[in-house]
Amino acid sequence: MKTGKLIVISGPSGVGKGTVVKELMRRHDKARFSVSATTREIRPGEVDGVNYYFISRERFEQLIAEDALLEHAVYVGNYYGTPEAKVNEQLAAGYDVILEIEVQGALQVKKRRPDAVLIFITAPSFEELARRLRGRGDTAEDKVLARLETARWECQLAKDYDYIVVNDTVDAVTERILTIIAAEDYRADRCEEVIKEAD
Amino acid sequence: MKTGKLIVISGPSGVGKGTVVKELMRRHDKARFSVSATTREIRPGEVDGVNYYFISRERFEQLIAEDALLEHAVYVGNYYGTPEAKVNEQLAAGYDVILEIEVQGALQVKKRRPDAVLIFITAPSFEELARRLRGRGDTAEDKVLARLETARWECQLAKDYDYIVVNDTVDAVTERILTIIAAEDYRADRCEEVIKEAD
Repeated sequence: MKTGKLIVISGPSGVGKGTVVKELMRRHDKARFSVSATTREIRPGEVDGVNYYFISRERFEQLIAEDALLEHAVYVGNYYGTPEAKVNEQLAAGYDVILEIEVQGALQVKKRRPDAVLIFITAPSFEELARRLRGRGDTAEDKVLARLETARWECQLAKDYDYIVVNDTVDAVTERILTIIAAEDYRADRCEEVIKEAD
Repeated sequence: MKTGKLIVISGPSGVGKGTVVKELMRRHDKARFSVSATTREIRPGEVDGVNYYFISRERFEQLIAEDALLEHAVYVGNYYGTPEAKVNEQLAAGYDVILEIEVQGALQVKKRRPDAVLIFITAPSFEELARRLRGRGDTAEDKVLARLETARWECQLAKDYDYIVVNDTVDAVTERILTIIAAEDYRADRCEEVIKEAD
């Protein structure tokens, strides 16, 4: 069986990662979504093992100590991270594993797993990103401005990704990501068996 | 205007490069086929500037001296090569330029132009490649065996390509190449404008 591909989807806050990933999961039938672990409290409506693995701070720090996380970060005082064992299990079963994570986490993954495919989602323009952040209606203006500042910095990091796609419409950007995932099957460094079989 | 991409299609003799490239040109409307230069004599039915640019040995050696060729090689006592100026002109006009060249020429191009997309076409198996070479009916058995020996060596070089596609059917392999060409538009190193525009 051919091993699956590790697909990392990232991009600035407000760019629409969540919506795009949802659509991608609907349209890519050999994909599994990687559920992150976190130490933050579970919120009403959330399900353990679906939205996140909700674990204690002690357990999380144990995972760090065991080097069992693909990436991790602290956000508003809580840990977030990707347990590696589960990801490997699904890759070995032939599934493409989709990680939806923050920009710095994505670059951590690439260092650890050079075979990971990093896709950066960007907005058509900064004006549009600002419009989307304000359009949520639940974010104070100073927070919007702080997020835009972060987004500028994150876009500088995009050059270290493998691919950059513009989120103009959910349908178009999902199509682009599906094209990238399909093409990645033919990358020479994933095709050793083809050459070996020919030998 | 966005610059076109330099697409290099290569693979062992008998794998069906010519047929695949013909189908690719038919289905990719922003592509231009790169016509090679050669010092061999024009054959009945061939057209100068269509099949090849038929030029003198003196002129060819002048092009080499001027460093005006993307790649070149000697085959059965004649020079073959790709004039770079024409390729650059078409890339600047926004066309993807398709080169159908031998395996070593392809690797020469990659050294000179790291942005080139190298695609290696391979047969489903060596048995199938042998069957195709013999099926032509115009090749003596000792030449078939020599070509298969070369093919084994060329397949070892495939790992230095960007992509490897299996030619099971012309339609399927053309579809794979079109997918690769589409995905290449989103490679981060081709997307500097997207990031700059966002700045």
